Amino acid sequence: MAPNAARLWYRHEHMARIGATGRGGVCRLALTPEDTAGRALLLSWTSRLGLTAEMDPIGNLFIRREGREPGALPVWTGSHLDTQPTGGKYDGIYGVLAGLEVLESFAERGIVTRRPIELVVWTDEEGVRFQPTTMGSGVHAGAVRLEDALAARDPDGATAAEALAAQVAALPGVRSRPLGAPAHAYVEAHIEQGPVLEAAGRTIGAVTGIQGLRQFAVTVAGEEAHAGTTPASRRKDAFAAAHRIVAALHRLVEDPSETTRFTIGRFTAAPGSPNTVPGRVEFTIDLRHPDLATLDRLTEGIAETCRRMAPPCTADLLPLLDSSPVAFDRAMVERVRAAARRVGYEPLDLLSGATHDAKFMAALCPTAMIFIPCRGGISHNEAEAVEPDHLAAGAEVLAEVLRELAEE
Amino acid sequence: MAPNAARLWYRHEHMARIGATGRGGVCRLALTPEDTAGRALLLSWTSRLGLTAEMDPIGNLFIRREGREPGALPVWTGSHLDTQPTGGKYDGIYGVLAGLEVLESFAERGIVTRRPIELVVWTDEEGVRFQPTTMGSGVHAGAVRLEDALAARDPDGATAAEALAAQVAALPGVRSRPLGAPAHAYVEAHIEQGPVLEAAGRTIGAVTGIQGLRQFAVTVAGEEAHAGTTPASRRKDAFAAAHRIVAALHRLVEDPSETTRFTIGRFTAAPGSPNTVPGRVEFTIDLRHPDLATLDRLTEGIAETCRRMAPPCTADLLPLLDSSPVAFDRAMVERVRAAARRVGYEPLDLLSGATHDAKFMAALCPTAMIFIPCRGGISHNEAEAVEPDHLAAGAEVLAEVLRELAEE
Repeated sequence: MAPNAARLWYRHEHMARIGATGRGGVCRLALTPEDTAGRALLLSWTSRLGLTAEMDPIGNLFIRREGREPGALPVWTGSHLDTQPTGGKYDGIYGVLAGLEVLESFAERGIVTRRPIELVVWTDEEGVRFQPTTMGSGVHAGAVRLEDALAARDPDGATAAEALAAQVAALPGVRSRPLGAPAHAYVEAHIEQGPVLEAAGRTIGAVTGIQGLRQFAVTVAGEEAHAGTTPASRRKDAFAAAHRIVAALHRLVEDPSETTRFTIGRFTAAPGSPNTVPGRVEFTIDLRHPDLATLDRLTEGIAETCRRMAPPCTADLLPLLDSSPVAFDRAMVERVRAAARRVGYEPLDLLSGATHDAKFMAALCPTAMIFIPCRGGISHNEAEAVEPDHLAAGAEVLAEVLRELAEE
Repeated sequence: MAPNAARLWYRHEHMARIGATGRGGVCRLALTPEDTAGRALLLSWTSRLGLTAEMDPIGNLFIRREGREPGALPVWTGSHLDTQPTGGKYDGIYGVLAGLEVLESFAERGIVTRRPIELVVWTDEEGVRFQPTTMGSGVHAGAVRLEDALAARDPDGATAAEALAAQVAALPGVRSRPLGAPAHAYVEAHIEQGPVLEAAGRTIGAVTGIQGLRQFAVTVAGEEAHAGTTPASRRKDAFAAAHRIVAALHRLVEDPSETTRFTIGRFTAAPGSPNTVPGRVEFTIDLRHPDLATLDRLTEGIAETCRRMAPPCTADLLPLLDSSPVAFDRAMVERVRAAARRVGYEPLDLLSGATHDAKFMAALCPTAMIFIPCRGGISHNEAEAVEPDHLAAGAEVLAEVLRELAEE
């Protein structure tokens, strides 16, 4: 059942206008007016299909297509509409719009499945304005406490609760639903965000699991001093201490096999004056590995490094996110493989280097992901690009899998 | 001629309420509404003395007490009212309020000097909102081009020209004067911002000169990438490149004698998302040394280090400020020593580790500085503190020197 490839492409372009950066990318941070506008655009499309929408207390959005047995547990598909500050048009958006395309093509063909299908838009997958990453699915799965998530503050001090209230007020047609509604199964389509499919010349990736991810915030506290008068030995220079910590962390995570992923994505020195020794530095650590024992060992090493290298300053290590390596349900992965072959694509098994909302869903119900290639493996970058054919191919496989699950 | 110590103390406390941080410090960045309010408070005091005020095209403020011979070149004294983001009550403010105290005590005693005396408030000494440091005196002396200074942008993109226009509009009683008015001599009182006077148990420092200062902005450009999917060898990680550059710079400036001062005061990684490899890092370098040849050698080393350590990223090095070591006029230094002894203080000769507006004035006319101690040598810190007696002592020495110069 081929999707409408032109419509699917067009909708990505249309959605990308909301928060367009002017350099081909998108900045649509979670729970901003742009995020709200993106959801309103999606709702304008789904309401034309007669679908109803509900939002849970963390703002996860559920758009429901009723089945022949309304009481049966629904099959879920979806992803997220929020982006990185210099993000692309496809990361997350594809999973939402591919799901919509499936629902719309079912409607056009008069297909009514036994189970309802719900299109999910998770809140704040990217974790930029408000941490942690995958906040909405984390709260849904009970891995992040709702009150902690709502209390998260952006750099200007606004809370996620305030930002969410503004979004709820701006989407009056959406009803509220309680947290933690159950699903029969979950399938998420996504761009690979890595180079493997492209290099192998394959169109469909059957994702076997997701590597583990831990995020930390480090706060180094020292003492402000005059840059001209204060000798190094009398300084408590928070920047210098943070630099020593980072140097030791680089040695700690060194891995010739390049399996370990270590990123410092945010780093600021305060008060940020050229002629004042910084009294405070804040930075984030993003650490990933497929092996849980390695993650545990490195986590311990990070804590020890902060303690050891900080003096005469102090370093405070705050865990932001702990997401263990996940293996998807084997039967679900096999469904993806089989569906891909049915519509003419030889699938490639892949482990996801990026994390996804599917990670939390895997603990709740049978879960799978479908990957399509992205150009050069580039993502979290305004240059993110895909082939229109690949968008349609992934949606076609998704339609197969969803229909099968929804008939169970 | 003893100043009114209580009035001088009170005025520091009064001025410190404008931009008070709530932790005993002050945030009154140049060309902000707080800066304007600080100048308005000063003008409320000087207008009660019948003094007139003028501002030059970069916003340097001149408050004039007429002399017996209005045509004679005026003697200048002053400093700045702007502060660091987490600054204190005395850095800069003292030089302005000590000057005002001298003018007021002259008025109370009916003293009219031969030459006019002008109290100068330099614009943007701290160089926080707008770079470079000592912008106003730099423009006055022709070391910074007026158009470059006015085109400086704050982190939100506003120009110094816009911010200055708002200040000019808010101070309607101040007339404009052209740039570069000449002075007979310049004397600036200031807190030491270092520990030497306190450690030696002296009250008055006769400043023999100012060490050299160079500031640079480094921009490291790489490529944004996904933190989970991109192996280190495929990254152009601007943070990692900046870290390598800083590590090499630390080795370059290593100096067991601790004469070299090296500070990275501002450092930000963009886009600032925990799960995106930074595509851009900006940081500042503040480098100081009393010896010009050493400054030249280190400057060359900084440029070479940026070139060598940046790949696969690029690093762009922009000089923000170049201020050579300055030796003050010997006769002026001797005047300060003699005046201190006349009023009962044995002075200590000092080289200033901090830079000051006096640095640019030294090229234009005979210039001197008078230092008083600050507690623990702590400055550029909300904890900045002085003894009330020391404020008065410095003002007393300043009065002696100004009266002598203004009678020449």
